[in-house]
Amino acid sequence: MSSTYGEKLKITIFGQSHSAAIGVTVEGLPAGISVDTERLAAFLSRRAPGKDPTATARREADEPEFLSGLSEGVTCGAPLTAIIRNTNTRSGDYSNLRDCPRPGHADYTASVKYGEAHDIAGGGHFSGRLTAPLCIAGGIALQILEGMGISVGAHIVRIGNEKAERYDPLSPDLSILDTFPVKSEEEEARLRGEIMAAKEAGDSVGGMIECAVTGLPAGLGDPMFDGMENRIAKIVFGIPAVKGLEFGCGMDCAQMRGSESNDAFRIKDSRVVTATNNAGGILGGITNGMPLIFRAAIKPTPSIAIEQDSVSLSEMKEKKLTVKGRHDPCIVPRAVPVMEAAAALAVLDCILSK
Amino acid sequence: MSSTYGEKLKITIFGQSHSAAIGVTVEGLPAGISVDTERLAAFLSRRAPGKDPTATARREADEPEFLSGLSEGVTCGAPLTAIIRNTNTRSGDYSNLRDCPRPGHADYTASVKYGEAHDIAGGGHFSGRLTAPLCIAGGIALQILEGMGISVGAHIVRIGNEKAERYDPLSPDLSILDTFPVKSEEEEARLRGEIMAAKEAGDSVGGMIECAVTGLPAGLGDPMFDGMENRIAKIVFGIPAVKGLEFGCGMDCAQMRGSESNDAFRIKDSRVVTATNNAGGILGGITNGMPLIFRAAIKPTPSIAIEQDSVSLSEMKEKKLTVKGRHDPCIVPRAVPVMEAAAALAVLDCILSK
Amino acid sequence: MSSTYGEKLKITIFGQSHSAAIGVTVEGLPAGISVDTERLAAFLSRRAPGKDPTATARREADEPEFLSGLSEGVTCGAPLTAIIRNTNTRSGDYSNLRDCPRPGHADYTASVKYGEAHDIAGGGHFSGRLTAPLCIAGGIALQILEGMGISVGAHIVRIGNEKAERYDPLSPDLSILDTFPVKSEEEEARLRGEIMAAKEAGDSVGGMIECAVTGLPAGLGDPMFDGMENRIAKIVFGIPAVKGLEFGCGMDCAQMRGSESNDAFRIKDSRVVTATNNAGGILGGITNGMPLIFRAAIKPTPSIAIEQDSVSLSEMKEKKLTVKGRHDPCIVPRAVPVMEAAAALAVLDCILSK
Amino acid sequence: MSSTYGEKLKITIFGQSHSAAIGVTVEGLPAGISVDTERLAAFLSRRAPGKDPTATARREADEPEFLSGLSEGVTCGAPLTAIIRNTNTRSGDYSNLRDCPRPGHADYTASVKYGEAHDIAGGGHFSGRLTAPLCIAGGIALQILEGMGISVGAHIVRIGNEKAERYDPLSPDLSILDTFPVKSEEEEARLRGEIMAAKEAGDSVGGMIECAVTGLPAGLGDPMFDGMENRIAKIVFGIPAVKGLEFGCGMDCAQMRGSESNDAFRIKDSRVVTATNNAGGILGGITNGMPLIFRAAIKPTPSIAIEQDSVSLSEMKEKKLTVKGRHDPCIVPRAVPVMEAAAALAVLDCILSK
Repeated sequence: MSSTYGEKLKITIFGQSHSAAIGVTVEGLPAGISVDTERLAAFLSRRAPGKDPTATARREADEPEFLSGLSEGVTCGAPLTAIIRNTNTRSGDYSNLRDCPRPGHADYTASVKYGEAHDIAGGGHFSGRLTAPLCIAGGIALQILEGMGISVGAHIVRIGNEKAERYDPLSPDLSILDTFPVKSEEEEARLRGEIMAAKEAGDSVGGMIECAVTGLPAGLGDPMFDGMENRIAKIVFGIPAVKGLEFGCGMDCAQMRGSESNDAFRIKDSRVVTATNNAGGILGGITNGMPLIFRAAIKPTPSIAIEQDSVSLSEMKEKKLTVKGRHDPCIVPRAVPVMEAAAALAVLDCILSK
Repeated sequence: MSSTYGEKLKITIFGQSHSAAIGVTVEGLPAGISVDTERLAAFLSRRAPGKDPTATARREADEPEFLSGLSEGVTCGAPLTAIIRNTNTRSGDYSNLRDCPRPGHADYTASVKYGEAHDIAGGGHFSGRLTAPLCIAGGIALQILEGMGISVGAHIVRIGNEKAERYDPLSPDLSILDTFPVKSEEEEARLRGEIMAAKEAGDSVGGMIECAVTGLPAGLGDPMFDGMENRIAKIVFGIPAVKGLEFGCGMDCAQMRGSESNDAFRIKDSRVVTATNNAGGILGGITNGMPLIFRAAIKPTPSIAIEQDSVSLSEMKEKKLTVKGRHDPCIVPRAVPVMEAAAALAVLDCILSK
Repeated sequence: MSSTYGEKLKITIFGQSHSAAIGVTVEGLPAGISVDTERLAAFLSRRAPGKDPTATARREADEPEFLSGLSEGVTCGAPLTAIIRNTNTRSGDYSNLRDCPRPGHADYTASVKYGEAHDIAGGGHFSGRLTAPLCIAGGIALQILEGMGISVGAHIVRIGNEKAERYDPLSPDLSILDTFPVKSEEEEARLRGEIMAAKEAGDSVGGMIECAVTGLPAGLGDPMFDGMENRIAKIVFGIPAVKGLEFGCGMDCAQMRGSESNDAFRIKDSRVVTATNNAGGILGGITNGMPLIFRAAIKPTPSIAIEQDSVSLSEMKEKKLTVKGRHDPCIVPRAVPVMEAAAALAVLDCILSK
Repeated sequence: MSSTYGEKLKITIFGQSHSAAIGVTVEGLPAGISVDTERLAAFLSRRAPGKDPTATARREADEPEFLSGLSEGVTCGAPLTAIIRNTNTRSGDYSNLRDCPRPGHADYTASVKYGEAHDIAGGGHFSGRLTAPLCIAGGIALQILEGMGISVGAHIVRIGNEKAERYDPLSPDLSILDTFPVKSEEEEARLRGEIMAAKEAGDSVGGMIECAVTGLPAGLGDPMFDGMENRIAKIVFGIPAVKGLEFGCGMDCAQMRGSESNDAFRIKDSRVVTATNNAGGILGGITNGMPLIFRAAIKPTPSIAIEQDSVSLSEMKEKKLTVKGRHDPCIVPRAVPVMEAAAALAVLDCILSK
């Protein structure tokens, strides 16, 4: 089912951008886990809109309401459901998109699939807003993983033409700035510059996020179609705008020799480790105990102010389109916690499935 | 389940490199389909070992035996099972790997997961040999798709430092040379050169495969976790050695502006098309009717002749390893039909699930 | 996953008896279906508590709030979620049950499974109240089936020692009284008598429900583990208190000869029919076009006023238990629409999976 | 998928009655389990045809060939596949059934579902012969359960008009005669008498099997749709000819009062037990530590020598049918180990899923 993910920890995401609410049901959470709602709120605020500290007028963070699955703040074994009410929706902005689809969006493909019934307002079920319930589930997963000594972090490694430093694959430092998900103010300034330049041009810009999971034991994951890569891919490609995904040295392995890409085994502190981490912590779909590392490419926000070429579906002729409304010139910073949430869910599900 | 893939067209792959047989069960094939076993054999021979025309001594192609699911050569609605007997296995070559795992292989991670019981000979269930049953299932899927006017092709676009031309994303020409899966003899010469150079160095080399599916209707795939990208990712990361996957412009979208990456809509021959195909034929997880295009990076064969650093697991100390046996210096050419098989299975399953 | 049912039409039920809300998410509903909320409310009122017409003080029916999946009252293709707020809960009544489990209830088994974290109030996720969201989903399925010419009905065929007439298996008349789900006032009087007698004794009583689906085409269902019987069994045994299930002549087939149980084929109005319907409309797991008929036995409500033998789990010694609160002396009448909902969901899922 | 069962221990059954082979793939078996193939063969021989000791000419027992999943007789973690070759098939006997379906068989419904392509010979994938691979998987599961102190047994409690004694639900004695799956020679004589009487009349007869699982811990199973009843129902209704299934007091609960059906809790040997076992060891879908008990009704073999009323599908007119070939007058004795296999698979899967 398209809005469901997971084997033992199963999440089901529901809602449209402009429906009464959006939400998530999480089945399979262990009973007896205390959910720290304040830390969860802090995590959710990282993907909330209007968050930039330079902005004075800040919209309230999305606040989840827990409908079930908790008993006095503790998971009780029953499915956990949390919702976020949709407010402040202006559906009128979207009325013309049913006939004249936005390039790069799902407007056209969803209308082919669902016909007239498709809820196009705000992108419907395809909206990036649906990553909020993913983050509720993922935020809880992150807390559970932390209790197991497993950390998940993500940061931006590219926006447009500007790059930021990647993690040390042997020992990633997961800390980021409060103001922007990179390591240094110098990087923040350069990457923000790319975003602002795109914004000023009425355009948008893409980027790349790197995610690392540390503290994983060796032996997690399954061969073939339920390997750790497959599990992460299935959830990460469920984040809107992701067009590429790579593990460890990733795409670069195409250029390498075996003597270069093979990670030599070593003994360190009585544990088996590897001297390099081109595998990104995964061999044969199974974790080897080294940091799990992947990178995902995020395409530029398709909604841009610049006039674009589209078509009128009713008249079947070409037509110019100007997208109304305010849109992020770059969703990459807000997608960083979403990537952490996705990784946490994939990893925790894998652990619980073991 | 790790060796099972698919929603309505479900494949289950079984076997180890040195077990009595390897095989596949395919559930959900429509009844009444005539399987052309000769064409299937021709397809399978593309991934068979020892296939290079310059080699005089050619091993026999793997020949599938159909145990069930066919009645007089026609699918009968019951699960189809086909097996290939394993012969010519020399398990002795692998005896030392249980203690001293090969870098880059699943030897170590599988031994953590399964303990002493792991069947390490030939890589066990993790062996690239298990792509043969995937190709049986995929070869049948290709025939069914062809009957629907859908074509699937793949070719090599990189080996080490040498590149071959990519498909025209708007109108890919799926033809390849008989001798090597590229378009021209010039490309063949350069890419083969990379392989031979690695071989002579006792080393191996990686590469990248591009795959295209043409003739797809718009509207296939589902939002979120069952989008076309997710479906393809789940099966493609099940092919050993794949470390990266991208759709359309893929990783490059991180460097693009929205005005550049958005594919403008056009009307052509009374159909909605796009002027470019950066989306790789997929918007919101759903096909838009343009060619579906993806690329996968294949890491170098981990088994190399050069001495490597490994460890003795019993003694927990570092140890040099020399891998015995004959191994492909580059598995990329043989992985090309595997990629086609994977794409065909993902697409046909998606069509049947609709 | 335990609270999820279905292949293409997937329902996920959430909530506990005393959580903020209970609800259901339905994935896979075709887009473009108009949901008649008034008829749905009428259907839900059949299982609502306090419904008996002899009672003057009537509690309000449970009213669903649709959070997603509808756009102007029409299904839009996205998951549909509806919730019912829990009000009027008195959790204090349940405080002693954590230590002293009610015989016949899940109190003990849930506490073994979930430990202290189990939400015991009102039965938690195991409460019969969770059949309300099942009825929301099922009520929508019933409307869709009706549009396909398929009818689902159920009635009571036994309460304690009193029986009511079964359906004619060849041509079931699905109509029931408004006041009680049987055919005649005479039956109502007798069956109600059994319930009142149990109530007066501070006891409860069980019963049997028969359900029929008419208008089904032949050819629905799959062999082996996804046969129509398996599909119905999986959902029907999810209704609390069901302890037995039979199709067609059911348990009686154990006493029959083949010449008696085999349903002879006939031609009627140019269609293949059977002369009898011992198969309950299913052969080899697949519908044969005759009415699908099954019966489920419902055990007596475990919560009774009579003092019972239980144990103190903390002291591990035997202890008398008197269950507080008001409980139905017989849940069978309210379970009738639940059975219809379950059958409708199983059948519609099977149709959509085809 | 219709021929697949299980969550963590997943079986996929393939083959038709007259295909080259029938078999099963089992995914999720723990690695390191030694399979006792002699005991497995003994178990399989209990369902093998021609087994009756009074018969002098005995056909060879079906012998499984293990294709994968074992390494020197021990499970290695990879999917285990075992096949049985079909020999001695006489497909010609079935040629007329495509046009003139046997009453009570899947001939008609399968032909509606699969059309001309259906492999009707011997019942195809619907044949009772497909319970042989189920028994291979189940026989292995039984060995694993035994190692956990869990026993599974089944026996006949009814054939036609003759009954045999049921298990003591508090402490079932699982032993049966070598010659017939009942407790005493007196029962054997009576039940065999029913079978012989049916045989002499050219007819067949049904029966009921009771199955018990002892040694189960409390806390296995899940609420709602993955309760122990649902899990067992999904596999048991996959056994051909099962038309009814009940747990504990089962259908009789419809006639009971709560004070009678509720199983009082007791303390015995410092464990929580129940004074009666009407629940059949399951409360709220979860085991309570008491013996798990269920009964399944098996309809008479549809293939009988007596002439029957059928139809010609090509001419759409009524036609007499005489079924050729030799058929069991009663499949109930051979279904007893199948029921044990099904119960073992359901229980072991549930344990592994925990």
